[in-house]
Amino acid sequence: MKILILGTGGTIASAKTEDGYKAALSVEEVLDLAGIERHDGFEIESRDILNLDSTLLQPEDWETIGKAVFGAFGEYDGIIITHGTDTLAYTSSALSFMIRNPPVPVVLTGSMLPITEQGSDAPGNIKTALTFAKKGFPGVYVAFMGKIMLGTRVSKVHSTGPNAFQSINYPDVAYVKGEELVIRHRPRLSRGEPGFDPKIDSDVAYLRLTPGLSPEVFLAVANKAHGIILEGYGAGGIPYRGRDLLSAVSEVAREKPVVMTTQALHGGVDLMKYEVGRRALEAGVIPAGDMTKEATLVKLMWALGHTKNVDEVREIILTNVSDEIGKKS
Amino acid sequence: MKILILGTGGTIASAKTEDGYKAALSVEEVLDLAGIERHDGFEIESRDILNLDSTLLQPEDWETIGKAVFGAFGEYDGIIITHGTDTLAYTSSALSFMIRNPPVPVVLTGSMLPITEQGSDAPGNIKTALTFAKKGFPGVYVAFMGKIMLGTRVSKVHSTGPNAFQSINYPDVAYVKGEELVIRHRPRLSRGEPGFDPKIDSDVAYLRLTPGLSPEVFLAVANKAHGIILEGYGAGGIPYRGRDLLSAVSEVAREKPVVMTTQALHGGVDLMKYEVGRRALEAGVIPAGDMTKEATLVKLMWALGHTKNVDEVREIILTNVSDEIGKKS
Repeated sequence: MKILILGTGGTIASAKTEDGYKAALSVEEVLDLAGIERHDGFEIESRDILNLDSTLLQPEDWETIGKAVFGAFGEYDGIIITHGTDTLAYTSSALSFMIRNPPVPVVLTGSMLPITEQGSDAPGNIKTALTFAKKGFPGVYVAFMGKIMLGTRVSKVHSTGPNAFQSINYPDVAYVKGEELVIRHRPRLSRGEPGFDPKIDSDVAYLRLTPGLSPEVFLAVANKAHGIILEGYGAGGIPYRGRDLLSAVSEVAREKPVVMTTQALHGGVDLMKYEVGRRALEAGVIPAGDMTKEATLVKLMWALGHTKNVDEVREIILTNVSDEIGKKS
Repeated sequence: MKILILGTGGTIASAKTEDGYKAALSVEEVLDLAGIERHDGFEIESRDILNLDSTLLQPEDWETIGKAVFGAFGEYDGIIITHGTDTLAYTSSALSFMIRNPPVPVVLTGSMLPITEQGSDAPGNIKTALTFAKKGFPGVYVAFMGKIMLGTRVSKVHSTGPNAFQSINYPDVAYVKGEELVIRHRPRLSRGEPGFDPKIDSDVAYLRLTPGLSPEVFLAVANKAHGIILEGYGAGGIPYRGRDLLSAVSEVAREKPVVMTTQALHGGVDLMKYEVGRRALEAGVIPAGDMTKEATLVKLMWALGHTKNVDEVREIILTNVSDEIGKKS
């Protein structure tokens, strides 16, 4: 049985330079520093596909990573991806949509402290990823701080602390207790032939609704993007008093998808709850339900990669693909 | 001794209508339903200044609320504001900048369930606000779910649950235990003559950095706003690979302030840590440090209300006004 570890860079592979931390090490060097045994019951092989601070990762890189993962399915029983933490939740979401029915575990991990620093969380995170990957549960997951989270449900919630990721509106899938893995939740994932469907349209813009947001700013963004995500307050809704943002949104939503998420970390949107939400629905806004912000962004890009028709995009956004959405209004 | 309660609407004052919940009740009706005794050692008076879902609140309303608060300083020993939760953290931040050296407690509160619903959190939240207001600590605070948080440090973190607010990168100020108030942290607030400085420029746009964000979208936003907040990943940084966002930001940052916050709820930005952050600093980006997203937005509007000079705005953003900023890089 064999595990493949794909390196993409990130803090986990970075070292101090005069300009601050910078991705520098190969995944082999990371594994050596983490003290990972390569022939411990399982064979572990590794390959470097990128070596970047994940702030620099672009949507085109998701296809590169996805292709490497998909191409390894026949040969490996589990695939681990080491990744910078900054856009890790975007990549885990992207792989969850692009790779249909992965037959083996695909586990992303990284670290908040470089492997080269004392007390780094890198060895622990790699071991958690390995422990889970060896169990063989198919799907895309994130391993961090002893937890296994579903790839479409994870967000980075801390910019400095080691417990940097949380599963949002969804339970953790598993956690490591000593050497043991405790399963807490089995995701609803489809079964079937593995497929690779990387077509996306990355021309999506993500704007936060703030008091006083001018319709002109919204229209300027809408004019330059094929899809817009508007991050509302709380349960969601669009203001129409003083500045008439609702009319601007209504105008755009006929031509291009406008998806509403929430600035609140937890709880998702529910546009049926308040009058301001109902009016947004009437204006044609697509609710992101309980999806993470990262999954919403990638799902909109993925939907737009398949159709520009607003009703078809709405249908894709509201349809569960990889257990990323439960509540839908 | 007298307490003034100002009503602005929100879920706390809302009732079910055919179109979903809508702000409807006066603050007197809310106090009656909450069973608040008006002559219980303290005199309690009330006044309705707005009656709106706080999604509809505009920056101009902050001045209206601020004026009512400032005008009441001579006559009252504490002021409570009932408010919708959606933009409560924006209003609490705005009042913290606009009202210099408040001589008495100014406490915002609201509820997640309308006072008209069984099990509403409104009575408890009003009582917490009253318990704290009676203690006389000057400053702007938020009372929610038994906690007292500093007005500049609070964010809405849950769109449905009652524990909807958290103090970010800062301890809670106090909590209620039974009938008692336990003080945990005394904010560093300036003393002096009370003043009212409501001048803001609300032409600020807030854009989330997402993989693939096109420089054209950023420039379109920058073209329509006097100040831009870019919500980076983790510790902060701007990509320059594939799509050259950094050059676009660099171009804009010479003319208009570009402030960087983080999408992570906790930990703030630290642009010195990574190469991508250092380059952002060199491009002229102003780091929001450990400020909340809400305080950052309002502070930028307030800074722009006083000067359009980028270096002066930077100076204001990085200077602590109401204990809203600690870490500054």
